[in-house]
Amino acid sequence: MSKVYEEVMAANAAYSAEFGSKSELALPPARRFAILTCMDARLDPARFAGLAEGDAHVIRNAGARASDDAIRSLLISYKLLGTREWFVIHHTECGMALFPDEVINELLASSLDTSVIDEPAGRGVGKGPGAPAGRSVNSLTFKDTAEAVANVVRRIREDPLVPKNIPIYGMVYDVKTGRLIDVPEATNYSKA
Amino acid sequence: MSKVYEEVMAANAAYSAEFGSKSELALPPARRFAILTCMDARLDPARFAGLAEGDAHVIRNAGARASDDAIRSLLISYKLLGTREWFVIHHTECGMALFPDEVINELLASSLDTSVIDEPAGRGVGKGPGAPAGRSVNSLTFKDTAEAVANVVRRIREDPLVPKNIPIYGMVYDVKTGRLIDVPEATNYSKA
Repeated sequence: MSKVYEEVMAANAAYSAEFGSKSELALPPARRFAILTCMDARLDPARFAGLAEGDAHVIRNAGARASDDAIRSLLISYKLLGTREWFVIHHTECGMALFPDEVINELLASSLDTSVIDEPAGRGVGKGPGAPAGRSVNSLTFKDTAEAVANVVRRIREDPLVPKNIPIYGMVYDVKTGRLIDVPEATNYSKA
Repeated sequence: MSKVYEEVMAANAAYSAEFGSKSELALPPARRFAILTCMDARLDPARFAGLAEGDAHVIRNAGARASDDAIRSLLISYKLLGTREWFVIHHTECGMALFPDEVINELLASSLDTSVIDEPAGRGVGKGPGAPAGRSVNSLTFKDTAEAVANVVRRIREDPLVPKNIPIYGMVYDVKTGRLIDVPEATNYSKA
């Protein structure tokens, strides 16, 4: 087995040795909320939002998109397991924003190889493995990210099965400060 | 704003006040792996697998299913951001196994209400909010869960865009002990 595999299993053995009363946790989230956020490695929703085990559902995909699967998960969270507030949390410097759609689509449609973009100064993207693919990326402003989270919240809200009055808070996580920035124009309380 | 909202923002303020060198983290996962697991509130992948911020991608949906969105996220993780090993982690007492498919499908297809199942002895499901909907559920054995994770690993492996030789480890997280249980029959190293 690999080094990563051995490290994960060793860390898990230490965690389970101190498991304590967590063995008594109930299935429904104790604090009755759910978070939809990005898979980005820099984000730890439990730490940045103060979650203990058992508190809240966490749904993650590339870009914190309102995919059918994310909406399915949110509906299950609400309908079967009783969450009553949802947070949609995008973040600054998201790969899904840094890589243009055509790069992603091309890779997902055809190539089996890895592409790594050129390193823009100060972004740290170039620490990734592999040869550069010779593409440059654009930096996105907070305004763009705020608009993206507003669009995702709107798409969730417009799903006909989404409960009409559940609050959906739109936020952006700043990877440089760890701070959640409220996006009031994205937050949506009800269709009415 | 709600109590939960205020709590999340207060926890986040404390987190960002101690952010330190995390502001320097790079976009690509430092330890070059990704985890696909369930949104279940009892699971904290960073804690149970020993992840620091910046280490690994974490993808989560209801049931740790191999949805198109999950596979899209894994492909982006590999192709754009350089992960080289994937963990697929199901868990005991998963809501997606406890609720029969027909209950879930019915709720997702038509109802805007919440359904809460009867409480089977010792499961703790009944701590959820709302009135019981009068349904009972079946307990699943570890064997069933292991088979489910093997099926998900197989589905990911069979996707034509998934790299042929990336190791995919299949595991089950035991919510009663916090332990990751390796499922060797689910783990899949290559198509060949």
